[in-house]
Amino acid sequence: MTDPIRPTDDTARDLARDLLAQGRHGALGVIDPVGGAPVVSRVAVAMVAGAPTLLVSTLSQHASALLADPRCSLLIAGPAGKGDPLTHPRLTLQARAAPADKAAHRATWLHQHPKALAYIDFADFILLRLAVSGGFLNGGFGRAFRLTPADLGLPPDGPHPAGTAPPHPS
Amino acid sequence: MTDPIRPTDDTARDLARDLLAQGRHGALGVIDPVGGAPVVSRVAVAMVAGAPTLLVSTLSQHASALLADPRCSLLIAGPAGKGDPLTHPRLTLQARAAPADKAAHRATWLHQHPKALAYIDFADFILLRLAVSGGFLNGGFGRAFRLTPADLGLPPDGPHPAGTAPPHPS
Repeated sequence: MTDPIRPTDDTARDLARDLLAQGRHGALGVIDPVGGAPVVSRVAVAMVAGAPTLLVSTLSQHASALLADPRCSLLIAGPAGKGDPLTHPRLTLQARAAPADKAAHRATWLHQHPKALAYIDFADFILLRLAVSGGFLNGGFGRAFRLTPADLGLPPDGPHPAGTAPPHPS
Repeated sequence: MTDPIRPTDDTARDLARDLLAQGRHGALGVIDPVGGAPVVSRVAVAMVAGAPTLLVSTLSQHASALLADPRCSLLIAGPAGKGDPLTHPRLTLQARAAPADKAAHRATWLHQHPKALAYIDFADFILLRLAVSGGFLNGGFGRAFRLTPADLGLPPDGPHPAGTAPPHPS
């Protein structure tokens, strides 16, 4: 069998950007600071100032893991739909998480997650912004693509001084 | 806020066992052998000889990662349902993956995944059995439980000589 990765095209870019724009939840992989094993959990996701962002409790295992080692992976899938989930499109992001300003982005978060009003102001809840280094789109069996941040419409991975995110709609 | 983990009870055990018995897909977290970052992808899951088992292609990133470092985490959720996915029950397993006998378990796999008939016999597809060391059940916001293999109805973690798995129905 040949390389299962196809050359990235605009159809793949559009599909990945749609998944990212519409995704409100994902499966987050982090490294357990005790022992180094991977740990996967469900998280809420929103696009905030042009980047995927998480609202998590510092009491959670994933948040404490990310504060110790910011490397993470986020799997975002489209609506469940019918049929075999292995044929449904989904996007894996590789990223690093960094604390973001909860007060500044509170309204943006609540616009995408109205029910978070019940807990967003708890002191243990923080926003983590994901600096994405790359993505992997599985558009269904045998349709796999590697994506750069540019393919995804995201800023290039690297240091982002506070407040200097590119002017994406928030 | 106090410890968000509740004492494990039979309701939690039953819910986790149901998720495990009914789950046919999950979000698998592995360690990228190049660089050590976590990577999450969607996989098919079946209960085979009493343990959660994956059917993966050795051409996939997750399979080659697991053959280099068997530590993994598998998030299994119930049906998507309505409402906020953060309130839906889901189970995270911590495990180690080891190759299993595809020919011996072919019928069991196909019974749970009939569509895999299209590719199960490809030479690059292998079965990986998960030896589970523990679980974490999130039964909805604020209802979190730690589970042992016994809580999950699984064999204790540890070496399992080939062919000596406990007599669970397969």
